[in-house]
Amino acid sequence: MEEYISIDPSDYHVFHPRPVYLIVVKKNKGYNVMAASWVSPVSEEPPLAAIALEKSSYTRQLIDVGSEVTINIVGEEHAEIVYKAGTLSGRKVDKWKLLNLEPIASRKISVPGIKNAYGFVEGIVKNIVEAGECDLVIVEILNINVRKDLYEKYGWDLRKARILMHVRGRVFSTPGKLLFVKK
Amino acid sequence: MEEYISIDPSDYHVFHPRPVYLIVVKKNKGYNVMAASWVSPVSEEPPLAAIALEKSSYTRQLIDVGSEVTINIVGEEHAEIVYKAGTLSGRKVDKWKLLNLEPIASRKISVPGIKNAYGFVEGIVKNIVEAGECDLVIVEILNINVRKDLYEKYGWDLRKARILMHVRGRVFSTPGKLLFVKK
Repeated sequence: MEEYISIDPSDYHVFHPRPVYLIVVKKNKGYNVMAASWVSPVSEEPPLAAIALEKSSYTRQLIDVGSEVTINIVGEEHAEIVYKAGTLSGRKVDKWKLLNLEPIASRKISVPGIKNAYGFVEGIVKNIVEAGECDLVIVEILNINVRKDLYEKYGWDLRKARILMHVRGRVFSTPGKLLFVKK
Repeated sequence: MEEYISIDPSDYHVFHPRPVYLIVVKKNKGYNVMAASWVSPVSEEPPLAAIALEKSSYTRQLIDVGSEVTINIVGEEHAEIVYKAGTLSGRKVDKWKLLNLEPIASRKISVPGIKNAYGFVEGIVKNIVEAGECDLVIVEILNINVRKDLYEKYGWDLRKARILMHVRGRVFSTPGKLLFVKK
């Protein structure tokens, strides 16, 4: 019989590791970038994703319903950028410049993706819902761009795309071996 | 220069692999279980998680604001159960019985966890928000139970806890090696 213990109900690590993304929004001059792993697809028709953003975060203050955003899918080679984007505040430094990010033009919106990301999702904020200390930002997905060498018919080629996942603090991981369930 | 291509904006696989959970709710006699990977923590204070459920799904029809739910964290040894829980409908079969699931009593609610799960989160539905063909179910977390042998101070011991992630269809994965970013 396995033994269970109760832990702090606010210990969100129970839901980790999970993919971590770079979120890009427009600011006065240029762009702000942040790291987020509290992200999920929430609908196919229309295509929607939800991003939980701290109410006090700079990114949250930069956006409203109608704002443009890109959700950038990254890999293990981007771990350091993600860590810095997740720990520095765009209020104090220009993270886009500090991290030497370069834009890739989006097709449907004016906010760019990040060059060398595995892919980037172009969206517009459709709804913002309060959820505790965060706001749940519902984004309608207008276009998805993926690196041609990394994506197959039904998703990432995980032999090549080392999708970055956040474990905790400075610790990250990537998917390991594949498991196939029999029909 | 990496080459990008546009894919269908409803191809949610761009956000996978991601952890997959077993969601348990009460039904007339017993419990219903479903698999879900469109799940995310959304707040620490109070602790909240969001689950995207198809409006037409049986689980969605079984719950409302105030309903009790457990979110069960599972591992590679549960892949077959997860696949079946995700492909069969509780309207047609009693999945709880078919999958030979056994309950573990929760501390704060009457809906149980699933025996042998790595852990289970006890919650109450606080809010339901429309999002396309899904409803986003916001759950307040009242208690978290984890297997004592698998959990460390800041999360799962990934050398032992082979957290299950959904890739697509019958394909799953688990976290591979750990990466540490320097300060």
